[in-house]
Amino acid sequence: MQIKSRKLKNVTSVFWNSQNNSLVLLDQRLLPWDVKFNEYHSVKDVSEAIKNMVVRGAPAIGVTAAYGMVFAAIQALSKFKRQEKQIEFLKASYSTLISSRPTAVDLENFARIILEEAINTNLSVENVLNKAHSLREKVIDECKNIGIQGEKIIKNGDTILTHCNAGAPATVDYGTALAPIYVAHSKNKKVRVIVDETRPRLQGARITAWELYEAGIEHSIITDNSAAFLMSKGEIDKIIVGADRCLQDGTIANKIGTLSLAISAKYFGIDFFVALPWSTIDLSGRKASDIVIEERDEEEVKFVTSMEKRILISNEKSPVLNYAFDITPAELIKGYITSEGVLTLDQLKKVIKK
Amino acid sequence: MQIKSRKLKNVTSVFWNSQNNSLVLLDQRLLPWDVKFNEYHSVKDVSEAIKNMVVRGAPAIGVTAAYGMVFAAIQALSKFKRQEKQIEFLKASYSTLISSRPTAVDLENFARIILEEAINTNLSVENVLNKAHSLREKVIDECKNIGIQGEKIIKNGDTILTHCNAGAPATVDYGTALAPIYVAHSKNKKVRVIVDETRPRLQGARITAWELYEAGIEHSIITDNSAAFLMSKGEIDKIIVGADRCLQDGTIANKIGTLSLAISAKYFGIDFFVALPWSTIDLSGRKASDIVIEERDEEEVKFVTSMEKRILISNEKSPVLNYAFDITPAELIKGYITSEGVLTLDQLKKVIKK
Repeated sequence: MQIKSRKLKNVTSVFWNSQNNSLVLLDQRLLPWDVKFNEYHSVKDVSEAIKNMVVRGAPAIGVTAAYGMVFAAIQALSKFKRQEKQIEFLKASYSTLISSRPTAVDLENFARIILEEAINTNLSVENVLNKAHSLREKVIDECKNIGIQGEKIIKNGDTILTHCNAGAPATVDYGTALAPIYVAHSKNKKVRVIVDETRPRLQGARITAWELYEAGIEHSIITDNSAAFLMSKGEIDKIIVGADRCLQDGTIANKIGTLSLAISAKYFGIDFFVALPWSTIDLSGRKASDIVIEERDEEEVKFVTSMEKRILISNEKSPVLNYAFDITPAELIKGYITSEGVLTLDQLKKVIKK
Repeated sequence: MQIKSRKLKNVTSVFWNSQNNSLVLLDQRLLPWDVKFNEYHSVKDVSEAIKNMVVRGAPAIGVTAAYGMVFAAIQALSKFKRQEKQIEFLKASYSTLISSRPTAVDLENFARIILEEAINTNLSVENVLNKAHSLREKVIDECKNIGIQGEKIIKNGDTILTHCNAGAPATVDYGTALAPIYVAHSKNKKVRVIVDETRPRLQGARITAWELYEAGIEHSIITDNSAAFLMSKGEIDKIIVGADRCLQDGTIANKIGTLSLAISAKYFGIDFFVALPWSTIDLSGRKASDIVIEERDEEEVKFVTSMEKRILISNEKSPVLNYAFDITPAELIKGYITSEGVLTLDQLKKVIKK
């Protein structure tokens, strides 16, 4: 299942290996200690990889799900001759994939696009595979442009706080929240990043810190509960985070801890930005109360798993509440960093309506 | 250095062993997996135990420092005949002790009381030891009364969020923030506690969860960054925390993460209380900007140490900022739970002036 690690600089977290028709995923659970890629060949295995967080980050999960639907097409064509049965299988595969994680909307959006492509055109592997490739390219391209647009709000000397990992692994390449920082750095702006460690799975301490270190960008890791204190000391100029779902009213769901950052930012008058591609926008008309917030296993909090070791870090018999995401209202968000520019809520609403 | 573990129900975290004139400290670094007591016999060893967090919690550190000054008296009397030299030694010991941790004021307050006792009366071990005993008894008594007073604000069915550990180990016995919860529970009020795990040293997940579990009080552990989300869902009725220092204007220094909770509580209209004994009040006239916030070693964040194992959980080459405390302004605090009642800021100021 493993292929040879590539050099860090060429890492993309999700890609298709056309030599053996497999989906290749960077195993993000092992970062930064091991840069390992796994190959997948079925809807079921892709769904498990999403659930187990081999792949994480809303856009990367979206692209993964698109390729998952490619496997659905391959399997439908090989198993069934009747179109009706093929469609039934494709719809069941779609349900399997979107139920693997409930909060990130990209998963749903991308899987649905491939499902519709499969149903509404002559079903062929080539068609759906090309569609999946084009979605992947679109996300990469969008992230590049998020970087170019977002760079405009970064001043020389800024210290920017970010939460979780909204960098290259989370989005196939470049990142959302980190993309503007990469562009600013490439333009020789001095920029420093404060990295929330992001309990319980430590995507900040493990992945964001690793990316920034490799890119030579000045940064420091903090515990999540240190952020407000740094804000109070005037050490944070702005906050940029990614998103797992953005409603039409500008409400976002993002990694647990985002809400607390946004509230503290408001209290201290610090601008709070959300960087996101189009695939993160939920066009279904859902309200905040309709967003399903994933609750994950309490073992994630009770134990720390790292470098092939697993140790208990809490009172073992105590129960744990482990919400993976939270919901931040638009009133706390200064701007939305998109490939079309850094938008106010009203501007975002106009773009969504187009 | 170790003596036999006592049954949990009799645990006090700091006490004097008169059989061999040693100070006995519950090793809080090992909780909840090991209930182990260490014995100390010198200023230097006591100072190290405070620095290394064998003992933690502002009042428990205060009492420990008082006994540390007893060792100073013992050493001064055995080393020097001239009073001048003895006082010099006592003052040097005082400096050693108060420099072991800079943020909690109880340390300074209690060590100074013993220093003054030693200087202003005929220096005798008996005198300073009795003074240290009386300070210890006073803290225990106060915590009992904090429980009795604080219970009045707890409604039947309340869910209370707390941060770090302001329970029995932190205060010799009973606790500050937990004392009202214990009293409410003993009066058969239904009360549930949400326990912030409290990175990096996990005093909530390890110690508070253990205490509550042993006491049979319903509770759940959460990651620190989940608190605001639970508040947004209406799942938190009130917040009670301890304090490491309370200025005369009501500003408090407490475990890192307290500020963020207080800001979120304000945003959601949830009452935020601070429970504290008199020894936590800083009467020096210091301002918030004068409080020294301890920065601890970055290894505390980069590695998790638990059950005799130590594992890396972050990108090893990234730097870390590890502030141990933060500062919460009085405007975010609904009330101060003291042994004299639950006081508003104005009432607290009046009591302080007495």
